Amino acid sequence: MTFEQQLAALGLTLPPAPKPVASYIPAVRTGNLVFVSGQLPFKDGQLMATGPVPSACSVEAAQAAARQCVLNGLAVVGDQVGGDFSRVVRIVRVGAFVQSDDGFTEQPKVANGGSELLQQLFGEPGRHARAAVGTNALPLGASVEIELLVEVR
Amino acid sequence: MTFEQQLAALGLTLPPAPKPVASYIPAVRTGNLVFVSGQLPFKDGQLMATGPVPSACSVEAAQAAARQCVLNGLAVVGDQVGGDFSRVVRIVRVGAFVQSDDGFTEQPKVANGGSELLQQLFGEPGRHARAAVGTNALPLGASVEIELLVEVR
Amino acid sequence: MTFEQQLAALGLTLPPAPKPVASYIPAVRTGNLVFVSGQLPFKDGQLMATGPVPSACSVEAAQAAARQCVLNGLAVVGDQVGGDFSRVVRIVRVGAFVQSDDGFTEQPKVANGGSELLQQLFGEPGRHARAAVGTNALPLGASVEIELLVEVR
Repeated sequence: MTFEQQLAALGLTLPPAPKPVASYIPAVRTGNLVFVSGQLPFKDGQLMATGPVPSACSVEAAQAAARQCVLNGLAVVGDQVGGDFSRVVRIVRVGAFVQSDDGFTEQPKVANGGSELLQQLFGEPGRHARAAVGTNALPLGASVEIELLVEVR
Repeated sequence: MTFEQQLAALGLTLPPAPKPVASYIPAVRTGNLVFVSGQLPFKDGQLMATGPVPSACSVEAAQAAARQCVLNGLAVVGDQVGGDFSRVVRIVRVGAFVQSDDGFTEQPKVANGGSELLQQLFGEPGRHARAAVGTNALPLGASVEIELLVEVR
Repeated sequence: MTFEQQLAALGLTLPPAPKPVASYIPAVRTGNLVFVSGQLPFKDGQLMATGPVPSACSVEAAQAAARQCVLNGLAVVGDQVGGDFSRVVRIVRVGAFVQSDDGFTEQPKVANGGSELLQQLFGEPGRHARAAVGTNALPLGASVEIELLVEVR
């Protein structure tokens, strides 16, 4: 199945790609690499999950937020490849930051919400290197922030 | 205007590039990419801002610190391009870590202190992908640490 | 001395490379760059160091943990180069996350445990760009997590 078919099979649609609004931009391509800016779990203009995990946001809600961060990042990638996801060679790296209570240790489980979506959508080329860490604070209070590095043709 | 003219117009000068002092070094070039090590807001040998934002360091002071981190990083880049900033193709990525009180959410505003300087100095090629996150602790107690990824020719 | 000779001279052996167990994998190669996933200080299946530095884990223990993270990352690199470390052109970047008590400021000293090993093993090509930061929480409670970026041929 193509990326678009997999997306539809999962009942998902890509959000519109965010437009540049500041001195930084959603993505930069250098050579065949696209560096996608850190994505927050915005859905329909609202953050899906805020506050530290697990006291203010459950692990399950944070996983869904990680998935949304990845969807938002893929919308940015789509913009870079002119909407043609067959130009995605592979997902190279995912950087996942999880707003965590002190002592919370399940950042990998949270990040899997995004990682598993990438594998579902792209298959083997969706599997990626990853660094998942905790942090005490994120922009706008988001529970998760995810950046992507993607090889394209 | 050239990079040097923009720098002068802003009343800024680049500090001397730091020399390697340990097992890690200020930057590594691979292909056309220069990875610059995380920079602290040193100015004239002193940290401009320490402690968490906003309880120990105001947002405004942290923005100035972010700007200084970027200046220090550009000094490193200058060393890599033999002082010829016309060899900078573009700024690819900025990674910004802001020492944050729990619940602080304005890391993007802090990071803008550095991002806006890059846009002022380089114009469109200064716009970059970015991940800005909070953290509870940084080296030497610095309020901000910023790393750069730059494409050069 | 070769990498293998240096390793032996230090009385070290590489652990077996971890196998992919999830939607993310130990490393991805794109072009001549190998992005290695964030490594935890596992030794013989156990985490060597857990909890924040310095209250639950001393600086010295965290340095040893950083060294182990690097060893584990090099095992992954070995898998990528078919066990032939002469194919490592250089270490490009090290990202070090140190689980830190609020106010802890010696993340560079901790990260040096890994950085110095890289220099010992590879010499000049082992010197790398680095970002070392603190964080309040890491996967499984590990005291240190380190990711590597390596240029290979």
